Amino acid sequence: MKPTKTAETRTATLAEIAREAGVSAPTVSKVLNGRADVAPSTRSRVEELLRAHGYRRRRAEATRSPLIDLVFHELESAWAMEVIRGVENVARDAGLSVVLSESAGRLTPGRTWADQVAARRPHGVVLVLSGLDESQRALLTSRSIPFVVMDPAGDPGTDVPSIGATNWQGGLAATRHLVELGHTRIGALSGPSRMMCSRARVDGYRAALETAGLPVDPSLIVTGDFHHEAGYRLGLKLLRREDRPTAVFAGNDLQALGLYEAARELGLRIPEDLSVVGFDDLPVARWVGPPLTTVRQPLTEMAEAAARLVLDLGREEESPVATRVELATSLVVRSSTAPPAA
Amino acid sequence: MKPTKTAETRTATLAEIAREAGVSAPTVSKVLNGRADVAPSTRSRVEELLRAHGYRRRRAEATRSPLIDLVFHELESAWAMEVIRGVENVARDAGLSVVLSESAGRLTPGRTWADQVAARRPHGVVLVLSGLDESQRALLTSRSIPFVVMDPAGDPGTDVPSIGATNWQGGLAATRHLVELGHTRIGALSGPSRMMCSRARVDGYRAALETAGLPVDPSLIVTGDFHHEAGYRLGLKLLRREDRPTAVFAGNDLQALGLYEAARELGLRIPEDLSVVGFDDLPVARWVGPPLTTVRQPLTEMAEAAARLVLDLGREEESPVATRVELATSLVVRSSTAPPAA
Repeated sequence: MKPTKTAETRTATLAEIAREAGVSAPTVSKVLNGRADVAPSTRSRVEELLRAHGYRRRRAEATRSPLIDLVFHELESAWAMEVIRGVENVARDAGLSVVLSESAGRLTPGRTWADQVAARRPHGVVLVLSGLDESQRALLTSRSIPFVVMDPAGDPGTDVPSIGATNWQGGLAATRHLVELGHTRIGALSGPSRMMCSRARVDGYRAALETAGLPVDPSLIVTGDFHHEAGYRLGLKLLRREDRPTAVFAGNDLQALGLYEAARELGLRIPEDLSVVGFDDLPVARWVGPPLTTVRQPLTEMAEAAARLVLDLGREEESPVATRVELATSLVVRSSTAPPAA
Repeated sequence: MKPTKTAETRTATLAEIAREAGVSAPTVSKVLNGRADVAPSTRSRVEELLRAHGYRRRRAEATRSPLIDLVFHELESAWAMEVIRGVENVARDAGLSVVLSESAGRLTPGRTWADQVAARRPHGVVLVLSGLDESQRALLTSRSIPFVVMDPAGDPGTDVPSIGATNWQGGLAATRHLVELGHTRIGALSGPSRMMCSRARVDGYRAALETAGLPVDPSLIVTGDFHHEAGYRLGLKLLRREDRPTAVFAGNDLQALGLYEAARELGLRIPEDLSVVGFDDLPVARWVGPPLTTVRQPLTEMAEAAARLVLDLGREEESPVATRVELATSLVVRSSTAPPAA
């Protein structure tokens, strides 16, 4: 038998919150139920109190829909597909369906989204490269809707459970591989610097150069978004230099493919004239010519871990201590890397 | 002003159906509401009568969840991502969220799925390369949940609204392009023959050969699934022949990429030794080396059309006549095709 909850964990009742907010209990109830007929100022005052008191809806289990919400920063590329598959795997086993949303390029989903989630009461929310602002967190917390961030773009704070990959170690392993092949002039394509994963990968690259006693040339580090087009554009910039690098560590596989195109356009052969390492190990990495050496990020497993964690959070009465789990990356050596030409 | 409904369109009432089924009206109501506490035999008898009478729940609008269901045969590859994006675009504009399911390789989603859909009452269901069996159709119809099939695997029947692409014309255009380059020995990789789209593409290929006065060699047509692995395996089979084809029309882009790998392995250069045409025009087609000549299928636009159609169906009082819409395919010539070596 589980022990009964003690008095310490008791939270404010709905009536107490109504009194403190100077509204009726039914109004608090309306706010809790995501109803539209509440003035915005009243809603935010009540939400604030619900949050301050750590109010958690009782018996949340019983009123939940058999859904799990999955929110992407942007729905692009095979990357997202690997993640969707992981969440689908866990949802299917748990008898849940997946609601998919896109925060349409913004890094926090819109207010409408949060209201919709509060109204449909899913078992949990998995956010991919996407965060929640304070009011959204308060809204979900007040409904006992747990959330987990996968591969956070920013610093999610130590109280937000998150699943990531060892990005720094990946950058280190990729660059060490190039150093061991004999490269001394190694460029880096970086993803957006507001995303922590991009920074961690480039920091791993720097650490590999420094520990090998090689200079870090800041002009060889170029930054853009995670798409093919950026890899192509930044690749041309790096490869057109007189003193072009003999190897490049790309921020992800799509950037690496853009770099392939830039090299083709300039008549540079991979790996004879240029070695390339990617990041992610999307299916396409095996299919391109030459097959891409890359840092494997276990996206499907990460998504499964995030979905399992969010369901676990929903089952527990108290928040668990788990804050951040990082799954290991690993270097997959294929045919796009070789020693530099003599 | 819209005219008032006439007596002709009146359907059986719940009480009439209950009487005919020999059960109480509340039992019919339970079946309609997807409740579990009804014996399977009773449920199927009632469903049968609901279907026979063309029963449609009144005022369905009011009780719908702000959701649209999207069901895939399998969630694989960037192909699915293009489709998801199209449905998301339409859903976002309509203030709806998308529930994503996978029928896990089976061509009709499971019974549990249909019950879940009936219980959550979405605005509509878009099925991708996936069909519904009779009882599932009856279940959705009885709840006035409209559905549309996108790119059907089988023959969806003339009464099921569906959105497709001009697969036959695509196969014709791809093969004509190869014939015009001077190829006379052209192979074809086909997708699964149970999928109508595969058959239509290969039939277009045959028609191009026949109208050009070229023989159709059945041994040059090989069949497998739509994945990279199949393209590689079937590609090796075709290319290892003494009398290997000088050009191959692949069933889709992923098969074409598998064929690229087979050619690389055998030391055949594309397009010098082998011309390749794909189908779909996924983003990756532009990124591979050499960039792939392929038949563009407007997947995102098709998905948008399917989502809009299903929402239109939900708004209308009568089923519209629209049964099958095919969006045009178009040949995109890149660098994987050239005249055969002399």
